[in-house]
Amino acid sequence: MSFVHHTPVRFAHVDAAGIVFYPRFFEMLNAAVEDWFAALGRDFRALHLEDRIGTPTVRLEADFLAPAMLGDELAITLTPVKVGNSSCTYRFDFSVGGAPKLKGEGVLVCMDLHAQRSRPWPEAIAASLRAALP
Amino acid sequence: MSFVHHTPVRFAHVDAAGIVFYPRFFEMLNAAVEDWFAALGRDFRALHLEDRIGTPTVRLEADFLAPAMLGDELAITLTPVKVGNSSCTYRFDFSVGGAPKLKGEGVLVCMDLHAQRSRPWPEAIAASLRAALP
Amino acid sequence: MSFVHHTPVRFAHVDAAGIVFYPRFFEMLNAAVEDWFAALGRDFRALHLEDRIGTPTVRLEADFLAPAMLGDELAITLTPVKVGNSSCTYRFDFSVGGAPKLKGEGVLVCMDLHAQRSRPWPEAIAASLRAALP
Amino acid sequence: MSFVHHTPVRFAHVDAAGIVFYPRFFEMLNAAVEDWFAALGRDFRALHLEDRIGTPTVRLEADFLAPAMLGDELAITLTPVKVGNSSCTYRFDFSVGGAPKLKGEGVLVCMDLHAQRSRPWPEAIAASLRAALP
Repeated sequence: MSFVHHTPVRFAHVDAAGIVFYPRFFEMLNAAVEDWFAALGRDFRALHLEDRIGTPTVRLEADFLAPAMLGDELAITLTPVKVGNSSCTYRFDFSVGGAPKLKGEGVLVCMDLHAQRSRPWPEAIAASLRAALP
Repeated sequence: MSFVHHTPVRFAHVDAAGIVFYPRFFEMLNAAVEDWFAALGRDFRALHLEDRIGTPTVRLEADFLAPAMLGDELAITLTPVKVGNSSCTYRFDFSVGGAPKLKGEGVLVCMDLHAQRSRPWPEAIAASLRAALP
Repeated sequence: MSFVHHTPVRFAHVDAAGIVFYPRFFEMLNAAVEDWFAALGRDFRALHLEDRIGTPTVRLEADFLAPAMLGDELAITLTPVKVGNSSCTYRFDFSVGGAPKLKGEGVLVCMDLHAQRSRPWPEAIAASLRAALP
Repeated sequence: MSFVHHTPVRFAHVDAAGIVFYPRFFEMLNAAVEDWFAALGRDFRALHLEDRIGTPTVRLEADFLAPAMLGDELAITLTPVKVGNSSCTYRFDFSVGGAPKLKGEGVLVCMDLHAQRSRPWPEAIAASLRAALP
């Protein structure tokens, strides 16, 4: 099952041409991933500060299909497509009123922040991610 | 009457010490002001793109009272304290669960984006701002 | 010939784990592209404000190879790999003291900001881009 | 003696009106403070990661005097005006080709990141700050 996060295009996101400056899309994407993990059962505060687990992005690809403008209401849909032992590939789609704006894939890795190396997903997160596979 | 805007402290907001990097507070403040103007009757898209009116900040002062952490739910309260012909001084208070984090004042100016100079507030906005004075 | 841009990893770039928050890499990449265009003969101010030409990114892919830390001195190397009539595919490599951190490709499109559609590169820029092909 | 830091106004800094979005001025200010501390003898990486010392801003006031535009070359001048046991008040002035854009004052506090409370400046930094008083 996909996770959907909603966010307005704010003044802080747009550039001199009045459209979203593309690095801001990735800030929005990260916020969506944050809320996704909370929905999966473990929020970023608990994950980072208590479990000392990070989820760095190790690969990203994106196609920018159409500009998004100040005031647009973006829907960001996240769908896991492959869940490994210590990684997760997910698809993302940004749209405004059904019109696609941005799509792509990212790969997250489960990282032990203390040891600074990858580690298996905690059992509960792995189970939630797998349950969300399409 | 004050306007209250809610925002989580996200991963994108915090620094190496795990607390909000202070320029991010002003991005949040700007988002709050954006939503405030929408609530006052004219959203930033219409204001900037249709009316060609900007609301630059010409003065700002802030006291950072306590750090805000990843996962905190910030309430940002905005209260106009002085409404001029083409400016507005407002107070802002950031708190988490009632505990104050940041307070200060900002001065916005109503600007004609075409002429690049200040202009009187549109009648309806001036009326809404005055109605919100404490 | 490749273009090399240098930038320190600043406090503003790092996250709670003390490493660069990945959307900041794309802000740095955009700064590098800005300086590249200035070196190619037309800076972003002239391009955007005088020529009314934008260079939006329409595709991006990146592999994050190793974390970059506060205080690292990043070298960002840009190399065009394909120059079309109105687009340019370029490779980017981020490294610190020769150690690779991030690599990928981006596709820029030359856009007429007034008409809001793609247009051919200005002659001089096209020539500079082609001259830089490896 | 004042410290001067130079930075271009980049595409990432400007808003839909083509001028610097004011929270970006504070990102630039933080970069200037970073370089100032390096010049004072202790860079932010060593300070934060080795000494476990942070320098949070506890107060800030700023007057935005004139807009800064894409491509402007900003000079940011920092001058300490009061050096306390564990704090430092400094003045900042942003200008472009001598024309003032932004001025104000900030108060930094020396913080023990482990204990999460203020502590005296390290001897060498205190001496450098005092030597720089006008």
